[in-house]
Amino acid sequence: MFNSFGHLFRVTTWGESHGPALGCVVDGCPPGIPLTEPDIQPWLDARRPGQSRFTTQRQEADQVEILSGTYEGRTTGTPISLLIRNTDQRSKDYSEIAQKFRPGHADLTYHLKYGLRDPRGGGRSSARETAARVAAGGVARAALAILIPAARIRGALVQVGPHAIDRASWDWDEVPKNPFWSPDPKAAETWTAYLDGLRKSGNSVGAIVELVAEGVPAGLGAPIYAKLDSDIAMALMTINAVKGVEIGAGMAAATLTGSENADEIFMGNDGRPRFSSNHAGGILGGISSGQDIVARFAVKPTSSILTPRRTITVTGEETEIVTKGRHDPCVGIRAVPVGEAMLACIILDHFLLHRGQVGDAGGRIG
Amino acid sequence: MFNSFGHLFRVTTWGESHGPALGCVVDGCPPGIPLTEPDIQPWLDARRPGQSRFTTQRQEADQVEILSGTYEGRTTGTPISLLIRNTDQRSKDYSEIAQKFRPGHADLTYHLKYGLRDPRGGGRSSARETAARVAAGGVARAALAILIPAARIRGALVQVGPHAIDRASWDWDEVPKNPFWSPDPKAAETWTAYLDGLRKSGNSVGAIVELVAEGVPAGLGAPIYAKLDSDIAMALMTINAVKGVEIGAGMAAATLTGSENADEIFMGNDGRPRFSSNHAGGILGGISSGQDIVARFAVKPTSSILTPRRTITVTGEETEIVTKGRHDPCVGIRAVPVGEAMLACIILDHFLLHRGQVGDAGGRIG
Amino acid sequence: MFNSFGHLFRVTTWGESHGPALGCVVDGCPPGIPLTEPDIQPWLDARRPGQSRFTTQRQEADQVEILSGTYEGRTTGTPISLLIRNTDQRSKDYSEIAQKFRPGHADLTYHLKYGLRDPRGGGRSSARETAARVAAGGVARAALAILIPAARIRGALVQVGPHAIDRASWDWDEVPKNPFWSPDPKAAETWTAYLDGLRKSGNSVGAIVELVAEGVPAGLGAPIYAKLDSDIAMALMTINAVKGVEIGAGMAAATLTGSENADEIFMGNDGRPRFSSNHAGGILGGISSGQDIVARFAVKPTSSILTPRRTITVTGEETEIVTKGRHDPCVGIRAVPVGEAMLACIILDHFLLHRGQVGDAGGRIG
Amino acid sequence: MFNSFGHLFRVTTWGESHGPALGCVVDGCPPGIPLTEPDIQPWLDARRPGQSRFTTQRQEADQVEILSGTYEGRTTGTPISLLIRNTDQRSKDYSEIAQKFRPGHADLTYHLKYGLRDPRGGGRSSARETAARVAAGGVARAALAILIPAARIRGALVQVGPHAIDRASWDWDEVPKNPFWSPDPKAAETWTAYLDGLRKSGNSVGAIVELVAEGVPAGLGAPIYAKLDSDIAMALMTINAVKGVEIGAGMAAATLTGSENADEIFMGNDGRPRFSSNHAGGILGGISSGQDIVARFAVKPTSSILTPRRTITVTGEETEIVTKGRHDPCVGIRAVPVGEAMLACIILDHFLLHRGQVGDAGGRIG
Repeated sequence: MFNSFGHLFRVTTWGESHGPALGCVVDGCPPGIPLTEPDIQPWLDARRPGQSRFTTQRQEADQVEILSGTYEGRTTGTPISLLIRNTDQRSKDYSEIAQKFRPGHADLTYHLKYGLRDPRGGGRSSARETAARVAAGGVARAALAILIPAARIRGALVQVGPHAIDRASWDWDEVPKNPFWSPDPKAAETWTAYLDGLRKSGNSVGAIVELVAEGVPAGLGAPIYAKLDSDIAMALMTINAVKGVEIGAGMAAATLTGSENADEIFMGNDGRPRFSSNHAGGILGGISSGQDIVARFAVKPTSSILTPRRTITVTGEETEIVTKGRHDPCVGIRAVPVGEAMLACIILDHFLLHRGQVGDAGGRIG
Repeated sequence: MFNSFGHLFRVTTWGESHGPALGCVVDGCPPGIPLTEPDIQPWLDARRPGQSRFTTQRQEADQVEILSGTYEGRTTGTPISLLIRNTDQRSKDYSEIAQKFRPGHADLTYHLKYGLRDPRGGGRSSARETAARVAAGGVARAALAILIPAARIRGALVQVGPHAIDRASWDWDEVPKNPFWSPDPKAAETWTAYLDGLRKSGNSVGAIVELVAEGVPAGLGAPIYAKLDSDIAMALMTINAVKGVEIGAGMAAATLTGSENADEIFMGNDGRPRFSSNHAGGILGGISSGQDIVARFAVKPTSSILTPRRTITVTGEETEIVTKGRHDPCVGIRAVPVGEAMLACIILDHFLLHRGQVGDAGGRIG
Repeated sequence: MFNSFGHLFRVTTWGESHGPALGCVVDGCPPGIPLTEPDIQPWLDARRPGQSRFTTQRQEADQVEILSGTYEGRTTGTPISLLIRNTDQRSKDYSEIAQKFRPGHADLTYHLKYGLRDPRGGGRSSARETAARVAAGGVARAALAILIPAARIRGALVQVGPHAIDRASWDWDEVPKNPFWSPDPKAAETWTAYLDGLRKSGNSVGAIVELVAEGVPAGLGAPIYAKLDSDIAMALMTINAVKGVEIGAGMAAATLTGSENADEIFMGNDGRPRFSSNHAGGILGGISSGQDIVARFAVKPTSSILTPRRTITVTGEETEIVTKGRHDPCVGIRAVPVGEAMLACIILDHFLLHRGQVGDAGGRIG
Repeated sequence: MFNSFGHLFRVTTWGESHGPALGCVVDGCPPGIPLTEPDIQPWLDARRPGQSRFTTQRQEADQVEILSGTYEGRTTGTPISLLIRNTDQRSKDYSEIAQKFRPGHADLTYHLKYGLRDPRGGGRSSARETAARVAAGGVARAALAILIPAARIRGALVQVGPHAIDRASWDWDEVPKNPFWSPDPKAAETWTAYLDGLRKSGNSVGAIVELVAEGVPAGLGAPIYAKLDSDIAMALMTINAVKGVEIGAGMAAATLTGSENADEIFMGNDGRPRFSSNHAGGILGGISSGQDIVARFAVKPTSSILTPRRTITVTGEETEIVTKGRHDPCVGIRAVPVGEAMLACIILDHFLLHRGQVGDAGGRIG
C-alpha cells in the first residue's frame, strides 16, 4: 500500500534514480479512453530536467512506453503499465554519499528505517520518481478530457525565495513562455537574476507552486476522511521536498474574520451558484462547490548545495559534506508539472468515486 | 472507505450532530493495552465545548462508552467500538437552514453531492464529529504509552487572527492554564480582549495550531505515498475548517536558501543523531528522523456569524442569511485537542506499519 | 482493515458475544435510499436463534437501531451505524472455558495470537457477530431494491450431513415453510428425524448452503484481484465455521470435460444472451454474465458438543472437555440468511464499483 | 485496487497475453532480503508451458527481470518491479475470436463490462497473467526463507477428471518426477493415458490442486474479514478457471458430525500443541494453529476445445465456434505452482500483519 495512491483510479509507482527504469501501474482507468504514448509524452517533456540553466543538467529522454492496458489506441479498463528507462546514469563514485548522510536528504532516515539504502542518486527518494507520477497524470488527463471536458488543470510558480509574483499581473498565457512557469513576466525577470546569483554561489532556494483546476463539477469529494482537500493535501505532500500545502486562503485563513472569509453565494445565469470570492478554494466540507479548485504548496530549497555542511558518517563520526553534481538551484520549478499531475489524478479519482456512490442522484438548485 | 483513516490502526467514525449518538470503531489496536473509559474521557473533556466564553455554549457531556474490544480492562486486539451520546439537541427550527445555504458551510456542497442533507446542526459536517476522533486518539495514546513510552504529543494555539505568540516565551506549562491552549500567557491576554470584541460584534476569526511530537523513534513513515508527513497532512486537512498544513518550516521553506534550510547533523551523546535546527519538522524523505515532529495547521474563522451574508435558497432565489446560535468565535481553539488526537493516531499507525514491514531490521549509527 | 469488507460499499463490524452490544458501520451507501429499522429487522428476525429446536435456544431480541446516516427515512450518503444490544447474557461460570481450549473453536488460536481472549461465549469469534452482517445485508438489500430492482438474492439449505436435497424437487416457496430453509419438503422431513437423533446424543453435523442471485446485470466484477467470484469466496469464507466455497459447478468442475462444462450461448428474446446451462455460476473471468449467480458453502458441524473430547489447558496440561450450553445441532441452518446478506453486500459493492469505473460505457450485443 | 492483493505485502499485476510484456509490482517487502533473478526464475520455469505434451505448446522463455527495489542483491524495502517479456506472440488471425464469444471464456463478459476487449490470446484474462503471480511468489518465498525458515509451501495435483490419487501413496518426492505434480506415481500413469485420450479427441478436463504449508507459526490471520482462510480463498479463487476452494475438510465438512470433526488437542514434546487430526486445515477462527495449512482448489476444464460449441457474435447472430490453437488439455496441471505462489504471498502478508499489530505480545502454552 506504501507506493500507491488513489481509491478507484489508483497509481502505483516504482523505481530508483539509477536502476534500469522507473514507472507506474495505473489501475481503474475507465475503458474506451483514447490513449497512446503521444498523449502522455508532452507532460513528461514539460517536467524533464535540463531544459534551462535553472534546473538540473541531468539529461534524461524520459520516453514513456505503454506496456499494457490499451488496445488499438484505447484503454481497455485493465491496468496500464508505463515504463520510463533511465538513460543518463553517469558512472560516478557514490562511495562518499554511501558513507555520509547529506543534510536535508533522506539518506539518514532510509538508513535508519531499512538498514540499507541505494546511495546512487538518492535511490527511491530521488525526484526522478516524480516522472512516474507525471506519466500517470497524463493518463488522468486523457480520461478527464472525455469525462469532464470542461476541466482544465494548470499550475504556475508564484514565489521564488522572497520574490512573489504580482497577482494583478497574472496571465496564464505567460506561463509556458518562461523557464519558471511564471504567470507574471516581471517576476520571471526578477527570478532570473536572483537564481543566477544563487546558482553561481552553489546555493539554492525554495518556492511556491499554485494549482488551479477550472471546470470541476460540484459534488466531488468524499467526507470525512477522503475529502477532496485532504486527498489533495496528501497528494501534494508526497512530492519530494514539499513542506506545506494550502487550499484557497490557506494559512492566511488564520488572519481572516468570518465576515471577510465568507464567500457569498449568488445565482449564476447558467443555473449554477456563483460566489463573491473564493477563500474556500472551491471546496466546502471536503466537497467541490463548482468554483475553481485552488491549491498551493511550498517546496524547500534543494538540499544538494556546494556550501559545506556538518554531518555524520554511518559509523558515527562527525564530518563535513559538499554535494556536487547536477542539481536544481530551485527544485520548485520542476514541481509545477508534478503538482498538476497529482491534482489531475485526484480529481479523476473523485469523479469516479462520486459516480460510483451517487450516480446521477445528486442535487440541483432551483 | 470514505469515513476511515489509518492503515493498520484504522479508525472509522460515524454520526451526525443531532442524531442519537456518534462514535467510532478503532480497528487494529494492539492487544494487551490497558484501556478503560477513564483513559479516554480526559481527552474528550479537553475538547468539550462550553468551557469558556470563547467556545460554543452548547453543553454536551461527551461521555464515552466502550462497547467492544476490551476484556478485564485490556484491549483484546479486536475492534474497539466507542459511543458518545448526543445529549444537547435543542429543539430548534431548522427550516431556514434547510432552505438556505450558509456561506462557508457544507450545506451547498452536501446538497449538490447527495441530493439531500440533514440540516440539523450541520449533520455529518458538524464539528461534533471531531469528538469521535478525539476518542480514537485516546486509544492511540493508551497504546503509545506502552509501545513508545517516550513519546509525548502536545498541541498549542500559536496564532489568533493577526496575533501570533512570541515564540521566545513558549512555555508548555502555560498551555492548560488559559482557555486558548496558548504557550505564551501574554498572547492569551491579547486574544482575550480581541476575541471579546469579535464575539460581541457577532464576528469570528481564524487561528493556527501547532503540534509537537517528542520522543518519536527514527524510521516511521512509508515512502512514497504513505509518508509520515503526507499522512499527517491528510489527517489534519480532514479536520473541519482547516485550510493549510505545514511540516517544520512549512510554507516559509519557500523563502529559505539551501544553506539556511540545512539541518546539520551531529552525533548525540546517546548514540543517536542530533541536529543544529529542525526546518524538516522531524521528517526527511517521508520518514521520521528522531527529531521532534512539528506540524501546524490553519483553521478558518467560524462561518456561522451574525453579520448578514448574501446567499441563495434551494430553489435558486437570492436572499440573505444570519446564522444565530451557539457558535465558537474562534473554532481553532477547540481544534487543538483534535489535532493532537489525529497526530497520535498517525504516529501509532506508522509505528505498527514499520514493525510489520521491517521488524528490528532497521539501521543504526556507529 | 481487519474487520471491514467491501470496496465502495464497505462494512465494518464490531462486538463480542457477551459485551453490551454489537453492530456495524456501513460506509459508502448511496444517498436517497429509503431506510428505517423495519427495512432491516426482518432479516435479523430470520437469522435469530431460538426459533426451532434445531438452533441454539439462546434468546436474543436482536433489535437493530439506526444511529446515523439517515434523515427523514432516507440514507444521506454518510456512514450508517447499526447497533444491536446483547440481551441474553446469562450469568454463567466461564472459568472452565477460560482455562481449557475447546477443540474446533478459536480459543486456542486467539490465545496464541493475542496473548489474551474474552472467554465469554466465544468473544469476538462467536457466531453472534453474524447478526451485524445480516443488518448490513439489510442495508444492501434496500439499496439494491432501488438500484437493481430485478435482483433477487435467496438462499437455501441443500445438504445436512449425508442427506442432500432432491434438486428435481426444488421449490423456493417451500424455503420459509420449514425450520431448515429447505427447498425440498421431503429433505426437511429427513433432516428433522436425523437432527433430532443428533441433538439427543449431544452431537452435531455439518451442512451445505446454496445461494442464488437472479437479475444481476452483466458486467459486475473487477478482474483480476477483485473478481466477483473471489470477493464472494472471501465473503463466504469469513462466515464462522465455513470450510469450502463453490461457484457454479464448484469442486465438481474437476470431473467435467470441456465439452460437458461449456455453457453454450444463444440469443435471448430480450436481446440478451442466454445459456444452455450454468456451470459457470453466472461468472466468467470474474465478471457477471447476466446468468444467475450461484454459490455454495459448506459449514462444519458445531464444535460445542456433549461428547467428551481431549484437549489441553492454558498451562499445558492434557485434559478433557464437554461443552454444555445452548448450542445449534446444525449451525449451518442459521448460516442461510448470513450467506444471503454477504452476497447482497458484495453484489451492491460491485454494482457501485462498476458504475464508478465504467459508467454507461459497457458493451451491448447486436 | 482491482489488480492488487495483499495488505502489507501487496502485489499489483499488469499485462496482457499478447502485449509487449507483463509483470508486477511487489510493495511492502521487508528490506535486507537476498534477492536476485535466479531466486525467482526457478518458480517461473516450473510454471512455464510447453514442458510436456499435457500443457500448451506455446513457448515462452518467461525470463524475469528485476527493475527496482534491490541494491547489491538485497531488497531495500522499496517496491520491486518485475518484468517478463512476451516472446511467443504468433502472428495469428484473431478476427474470428474478435467477432464470436468463446463459451467458458471471458470474451462475453469483458465485452459487456468494458465495451471493448483485446481479443489476442484472451488479453488480460489469459492464464499468462499467472506468470506475474508466480514471480511475486518467488519474492515472497525469498522473504519467508529469512523470516520463517521452517516454512515449506508445496502443492500437488490430487485429481484429474474422475481419477483421484490414492492418499495412502502420497509421496512428496514423486511430485517433481512426473509432468503432473502428482504425489502418487500410479495416478500419474492413469492420468497419462486418460489425458492422451482427451487430447487426441480435442477435449479437456478439470482437476483439483492441493496446497500444504508446513512450519507456519500459530497466530497468523486477522479476524473477522482478513482471516487467513478467507484471504486464501480469495487468492485461490482469483486464479483463472478456479470454481471451488476448500480449507481442511472442505466441502466434506458438511457430512461430518461434531465428534468426527473435532481435532483433539494434546501437548507436544516441543511445548506446542499437537492434534489428533487436521479437519481444520490448520486454521481456527481465521487464525493459524501451528498445524499444516491445507487448502484445495478445483480448476475447470480448459474452455478452448476442438468440439464445436454454439455461441453468438458481437452483433447477436447465433453461430458455432471451434477453438483451435495450442491449449492445455488440463489447465489444472499448470495451476500447481500458481497456487503455491499465492499461498506464499498470503502467508508472508499475514506474518507481517501479525508482527505489526501484535509484535511479540502473543500467548504461549504453559
